[in-house]
Amino acid sequence: MGERDWISRYFAPLATAQGADALRDDVAELSTGNGRIIATVDALVEGVHFFPDDPVESVARKLVRTNVSDIIAKGARPLEALLTLGWPHGRPEGDLARFAGALGTELADWGARLVGGDTTASPQGLFLSLTLTGQCGPDGPVRRSGAQAGDALWVTGEIGAACRGYRALREGRADDPHIAAYREPVLAPLRITDMLQAYATGSMDVSDGLLGDARMFAAASRLSVRVDLDAVPFAGGAPDLEERLALASWGDDYQVLFSAPESATPKIQADATEGGLRITRIGTFAPGTGLTALMDGTAVNLPETLGFEHG
Amino acid sequence: MGERDWISRYFAPLATAQGADALRDDVAELSTGNGRIIATVDALVEGVHFFPDDPVESVARKLVRTNVSDIIAKGARPLEALLTLGWPHGRPEGDLARFAGALGTELADWGARLVGGDTTASPQGLFLSLTLTGQCGPDGPVRRSGAQAGDALWVTGEIGAACRGYRALREGRADDPHIAAYREPVLAPLRITDMLQAYATGSMDVSDGLLGDARMFAAASRLSVRVDLDAVPFAGGAPDLEERLALASWGDDYQVLFSAPESATPKIQADATEGGLRITRIGTFAPGTGLTALMDGTAVNLPETLGFEHG
Repeated sequence: MGERDWISRYFAPLATAQGADALRDDVAELSTGNGRIIATVDALVEGVHFFPDDPVESVARKLVRTNVSDIIAKGARPLEALLTLGWPHGRPEGDLARFAGALGTELADWGARLVGGDTTASPQGLFLSLTLTGQCGPDGPVRRSGAQAGDALWVTGEIGAACRGYRALREGRADDPHIAAYREPVLAPLRITDMLQAYATGSMDVSDGLLGDARMFAAASRLSVRVDLDAVPFAGGAPDLEERLALASWGDDYQVLFSAPESATPKIQADATEGGLRITRIGTFAPGTGLTALMDGTAVNLPETLGFEHG
Repeated sequence: MGERDWISRYFAPLATAQGADALRDDVAELSTGNGRIIATVDALVEGVHFFPDDPVESVARKLVRTNVSDIIAKGARPLEALLTLGWPHGRPEGDLARFAGALGTELADWGARLVGGDTTASPQGLFLSLTLTGQCGPDGPVRRSGAQAGDALWVTGEIGAACRGYRALREGRADDPHIAAYREPVLAPLRITDMLQAYATGSMDVSDGLLGDARMFAAASRLSVRVDLDAVPFAGGAPDLEERLALASWGDDYQVLFSAPESATPKIQADATEGGLRITRIGTFAPGTGLTALMDGTAVNLPETLGFEHG
C-alpha cells in the first residue's frame, strides 16, 4: 500500500478543517493566518530517503529543501521551522554538530528560522521530520486545484537529475555530476514566488514524478492535461522515449509545476529572462480528464505507474 | 549525552527568533499570531517511548497528549495538528486503521484538528511526530520564566502514576492499575487553561520528573524553589523518602506545574473545587537559586539526577 493510499483511506477523513483541504494539497492553511499562513511537514528516513553514508550536511539540506519546495510552490515564503530528530546511539557527536550547522545555514538561506523541536534517541537509523510554515501572497496559497482549461503548463529547472544521481550511487559511479542533485535537491530560487503570485492559476511541486504529478494537478483542477515530452527539460538530455518516461516517472525533482493563462506567456518569458529563472512551457490543460504525453506530436503509451512512491 | 545537552549545544544557537525563546520553553510563539499562537512538536519512538506490543490506540492517544500537555500548560487551547508517521512494513493495515481512528477521536476531544502530515515507510520500528499549534489567552503563553519570589508552586493531578505503570509492565504485573497511566498520560482537563490565564505567573508541564522540572522552572524564573514532599500528591501514596524521590524524578507525568501569587490561593482553591479540578499547593518560590525538597519540615539530600531523560 503506497503513501497516497494510506493518507486517503485513513487520514483524509480526519482532516475536516477547511484549511486542510482533506490533505489533497501539499500544505495546510492555518486557521489563524487569515488564509495567508500555510504549513507543511516532510520526513526523511535513513535507508528510505537517503543512504546511511550520505553526508549529514546533505541530509540537513535535503530535509529543509523538501519542505521549502512545498512552500514556495504555493507562492509563499518560508517562515518558521520545528524539527524532530531521531538520533541513533552510534552516530558520533561531530555528525550532530555538522548536521545542526548545515540546518541553520540552509534555513537562513531561505529566510526561515528554527523555533522549536524535539530530539530523541533512535534505536535504529536516523530519522528526521521538519514542520515549516510559510507566508503567502495577498491571495493565499496557489492551490493545485486552480488550473483553467486553456492554461499552459510550466515547469522550473530540470527533470530527472535526482534519478540519474540515484542510479549513479547505486551503480558505484561516484564521479557522476548528478549525485549532488540526488543528495541535495536543487530548487527554484525564492523569487519564483513572485512569479507564481503574479501569474499562476494553479501550482504544486514535482516530487513524485513529473507525469504522475501533472496528472494529479489536472485531476485536482478537474481537467485533462497534455505534456509534450519534446519540450520537457530533461537533465543530461534524454533522446529516447524509454529514458524520458523513466526520468519523468521518478521522484525527487522538487521543481515547481504551474499553470498560467496563455495570455501571460510573453510576460512569464520576459520575467524569467530578466530574473534569470529557468522556466519551460511543457503542456496545456483542457476540459476532460486524464494525462496525454506526446512525442514527435504523437500520443505515447504510458506505463501504469507514473509516480514514485517512497513506500 | 542527554536530550537537553543536545538541544542547548547545537540547536539553541540556531533559534534566534524572539518567539523561539532559544528553545528554553516547551513551545514557540509563531511570528504570525501576534504572540497568541504557539506551536510545539513531540515525537514517540517504538522501544524508547512505548513498548512494541502497546496497543496502537494507546500510542495515538499518548502522541496527542504529550503535545496537548505542552499547549495547555501555557494556558492555551489546542488548534491544529500535523502528523509525521513512520510505519514499519510488518505492521498490519488494521493497526493503521485503529491508530488513525484513535488519533482522530483524541484530537477532537481536545478541540484540535488534523490539517496535514507525511507518512513514510520505516525500516525498523514505528515512529511518530506531531506538531500542534495552540491559541493563547490575551496575554500570550504563560512562560516558565514568569514565577515571582513569594509565589506558591502548584501541581495538577497526581505524580508518579506513569512510573508505577512502567515498573508494572517491566515486571509483568499486567493487572496493575497504573499501566493505563503509563500508556496513556492522564492530563489536566482543558479548563485548567482558564485558571492559568486568570492566576498563573509562570507555568510548564511536568514531563521529565517533578523535582527536575521544578528546578528548571525556578532557574528560568531566576529564583529558588522549595518543594514540600509531604504535600505532593503521589499516585498510590509514597510513605518513604526513597520512593518519593523515585516517583518525583521519573517522567511522563504530563501534569501542569504553575506559580501564582499567595494572594490568589483562596480563589484558586475555590475555582478548583467548583470546577472539579485536582490542584495541590506543593511549594514556594524565593530569591536565590536551586531546589530544596523538604520532608517532615527538613531538607533532604537529593540525588544528582533529578530528571528523566528519554535518551
